[in-house]
Amino acid sequence: MRSAVVLLSGGLDSATVAAVAKRDGFAVHAVSFRYGQRHVVELVAAARVAKHLGVLSHRVIELDLRAIGGSALTDDIAVPKGRDADEMVSSIPITYVPARNTIFLTYALGFAEVINASDIFIGVNALDYSGYPDCRPEFISAFEQLANLATKAGVEGERFTIHAPLIALSKADIIRLGMSLGVDYGLTSSCYDPTPTGEACGRCDSCQLRLRGFAQNNVADPIRYAA
Amino acid sequence: MRSAVVLLSGGLDSATVAAVAKRDGFAVHAVSFRYGQRHVVELVAAARVAKHLGVLSHRVIELDLRAIGGSALTDDIAVPKGRDADEMVSSIPITYVPARNTIFLTYALGFAEVINASDIFIGVNALDYSGYPDCRPEFISAFEQLANLATKAGVEGERFTIHAPLIALSKADIIRLGMSLGVDYGLTSSCYDPTPTGEACGRCDSCQLRLRGFAQNNVADPIRYAA
Repeated sequence: MRSAVVLLSGGLDSATVAAVAKRDGFAVHAVSFRYGQRHVVELVAAARVAKHLGVLSHRVIELDLRAIGGSALTDDIAVPKGRDADEMVSSIPITYVPARNTIFLTYALGFAEVINASDIFIGVNALDYSGYPDCRPEFISAFEQLANLATKAGVEGERFTIHAPLIALSKADIIRLGMSLGVDYGLTSSCYDPTPTGEACGRCDSCQLRLRGFAQNNVADPIRYAA
Repeated sequence: MRSAVVLLSGGLDSATVAAVAKRDGFAVHAVSFRYGQRHVVELVAAARVAKHLGVLSHRVIELDLRAIGGSALTDDIAVPKGRDADEMVSSIPITYVPARNTIFLTYALGFAEVINASDIFIGVNALDYSGYPDCRPEFISAFEQLANLATKAGVEGERFTIHAPLIALSKADIIRLGMSLGVDYGLTSSCYDPTPTGEACGRCDSCQLRLRGFAQNNVADPIRYAA
């Protein structure tokens, strides 16, 4: 059974991706990051999802992203609320964390090399992507090229594949796919600004995209929202 | 004055690169990493070098590379000693840290984006490189491509440049360049396995390459070696 490293944030997208990796026959090694994010509740969700999916291992890596600063997700900058869909996709919001996905993928690559895996799964999504540059197909393929040049395994002939199976799906498509694979979305957490007890705000970009995705499937989102 | 981010390890190469960045007119922001390396004495050296060169800022970022494992530089694996030069360049040694330079460059990229810098300097070297894949020109150019796709600045038209001014130089060339720029190599530390009081072992790959470089310049290496 081949092993794959799956980036697991605890959100809806990465839970779906982990289920896809399992469906495709991989033994899943999940990796999450504690990077000074204000919504640490997502790490609790990642652990729940990892257990639910029966992954082979789940590790949480500490990252020092606050040291480089520059994002509403790690600094004391207000998370934007109530933006409409056009606004979300036409501008890069301040919730963008500089180089975050590159850092995540690079750790996944290092770990993959150590466990002799050559497949990495990431839940980036170019349609409902909130305008992040590091969620685009051209970014993924540039990283794949880099992976094969950056590593001992690559130099020795291993070919790394970065799987981004959600990249062309809408949020509604992702939810449909996950439901078909038995993902329990009640275990996931997507909100950029949850309450201390873990209820989603319902108004940040991420909550709005999620709620719309469930609505388009005529399914109720199973997580709790603040009143 | 344009700003540049310079990766500063405290070693001979990165000290030289920082001096090159200054010579080229950049305001230098130095970045070092505490990544579970066994030779933390190099961070003390990095601080000394930063002060000596008069950099604008110097930050030390904590990295959790031990969580991914797989290297004699972070795990309890013996550092190889007394290898000859051919052995060093013909095989990738166990001191290779999976994806390390990629992680370092990615942090530098995130930080550069935050401070509006588009120039990053790294002291990789393809000749005396001890067989590390992430010290080759093709790696640097793949990372440069990725940088322009991974970032908000790149998407908005900024062009990042990864400067690797030592890439084609021998260790002897690097030392000659640094001396011409007034670098005090007595402040640097290169050993993979120094004594607790900071003396270099003189026998690991890094010490041997360094000693040979000074010898070829007919100059004594100013640092202290264990008897």
